[in-house]
Amino acid sequence: MEKPVFPKMEPGHVWLVGAGPGDPGLLTLHAVNALGEADVIVYDALVDQQCLSLAAPGAVLEYAGKRGGKPSAKQRDISLRLVELAREGKRVLRLKGGDPFVFGRGGEEALTLVEHNVPFRIVPGVTAGTAALAYAGIPVTHRDINHSVTFLTGHDAGGVVPERIDWNGVARSSPVIVMYMAMKHIGPIAERLMIAGRPPSEPVAIVCNGTTEKQQVLESTLATCTADVAASDLIPPAIVVVGEAVRLRAGLDWLGALAGRKLDSDPLGSGVRETGRDAE
Amino acid sequence: MEKPVFPKMEPGHVWLVGAGPGDPGLLTLHAVNALGEADVIVYDALVDQQCLSLAAPGAVLEYAGKRGGKPSAKQRDISLRLVELAREGKRVLRLKGGDPFVFGRGGEEALTLVEHNVPFRIVPGVTAGTAALAYAGIPVTHRDINHSVTFLTGHDAGGVVPERIDWNGVARSSPVIVMYMAMKHIGPIAERLMIAGRPPSEPVAIVCNGTTEKQQVLESTLATCTADVAASDLIPPAIVVVGEAVRLRAGLDWLGALAGRKLDSDPLGSGVRETGRDAE
Repeated sequence: MEKPVFPKMEPGHVWLVGAGPGDPGLLTLHAVNALGEADVIVYDALVDQQCLSLAAPGAVLEYAGKRGGKPSAKQRDISLRLVELAREGKRVLRLKGGDPFVFGRGGEEALTLVEHNVPFRIVPGVTAGTAALAYAGIPVTHRDINHSVTFLTGHDAGGVVPERIDWNGVARSSPVIVMYMAMKHIGPIAERLMIAGRPPSEPVAIVCNGTTEKQQVLESTLATCTADVAASDLIPPAIVVVGEAVRLRAGLDWLGALAGRKLDSDPLGSGVRETGRDAE
Repeated sequence: MEKPVFPKMEPGHVWLVGAGPGDPGLLTLHAVNALGEADVIVYDALVDQQCLSLAAPGAVLEYAGKRGGKPSAKQRDISLRLVELAREGKRVLRLKGGDPFVFGRGGEEALTLVEHNVPFRIVPGVTAGTAALAYAGIPVTHRDINHSVTFLTGHDAGGVVPERIDWNGVARSSPVIVMYMAMKHIGPIAERLMIAGRPPSEPVAIVCNGTTEKQQVLESTLATCTADVAASDLIPPAIVVVGEAVRLRAGLDWLGALAGRKLDSDPLGSGVRETGRDAE
């Protein structure tokens, strides 16, 4: 079988690359290749340090994150810095947590590159919304539960619960709701979902530092999640998921099982085993 | 910086691994390691042949796909085959297109492993719903367009348009709708979205064989997509996206640009450049 040949970074080009959710094993080959080839790596706070350890010895690492104790860079400044580095003829790796096009502002950065005629490539990454949940044993889709899933941000540009989201519509049409950057506002969000008709007993999970060695999972319900988060020592980044899919964790917590947890092969309590239906 | 250490496959264990959308450069390191370590690789039709070229020379490749000219395996039979191979003490790699937990039936296969006390690991992959669109220059989220995105399947177990989806709710609450396995039913789906209030002029893109060398992109609208698909020579697998995000392709078609296409740095025609807002 033909072995794949991968593109190489070129001087003066920018690669906007998703680093995935944290576990360096979830880096893509394109991302690893870029880490090994880049002259400069402009990375943000959600990029795991172990991922950066794969950079070439001579590469310059520039922090451009917006969290933590270090000074924040403005989005426009980051984009213009990419332009500047590319114009110096550098091979520029812009490494972002997760996927650059999933709540990652990659489109904005890329349009600034277009504005300044800088050639670029987009490399998708594994997004935390699916992977952090997978590491918690929660599939975002499962045939007995849902045929659709909605991903949303739990805050907007002003840092408050986004009014641009139609919470009633989401509550009604999305059996499973996956939320990025929502832990801080979990109280008002849970309240809105219950007002829109979601049952107070509906399961909720909060996964902090998903896929990393620091991963923590809190299982709760819409009615109790606000108090449970307040009583916990959890800190972001976190993914919050609302829906019956959370119940599958009792059967699919594979990380727990590798550490000795006994799993339940019928976590939905349906008595229904896998069917022979094949169409999906 | 500390270099990452990766888990190794153990005899009698099954790894349920996402192979990503097609481009072997989007394989994760865990997937590549598993390809190199597995005794048996049970793969489905959506796994690219170039990904399989990374298997160890002695590995047995078993086809378990549900497409193409070869006979189909039933889902339950595939799961039981994984149990059987694990019990023989094999290191078993179950390689699925995309992500096993995103419309991939990974949860069902894993529960069968639990039922039979077979230890397993889940390795998420890059899902086609984001990556095929990224390779077409379409971000599934963009701050000026949407704070939520819905992923759904375009058919259900019976192979028809899924009735379990609340199309009115999705139309109302999801500015961007990403559909898997929807090309065949694009007519009735577009019809329902328009009945639910989405404008006939709303842009639609269909990306076939996304991220591979055979990638084809068709841009259309809700009103015209049925006829446009019928008049095309496109064949699945495809991702269909509905929403204003499609307009960004004029600015972000980086694959086209690498081949000479002139991009538009203001594809939404808003005159608005990137802002300095940083909260998201």
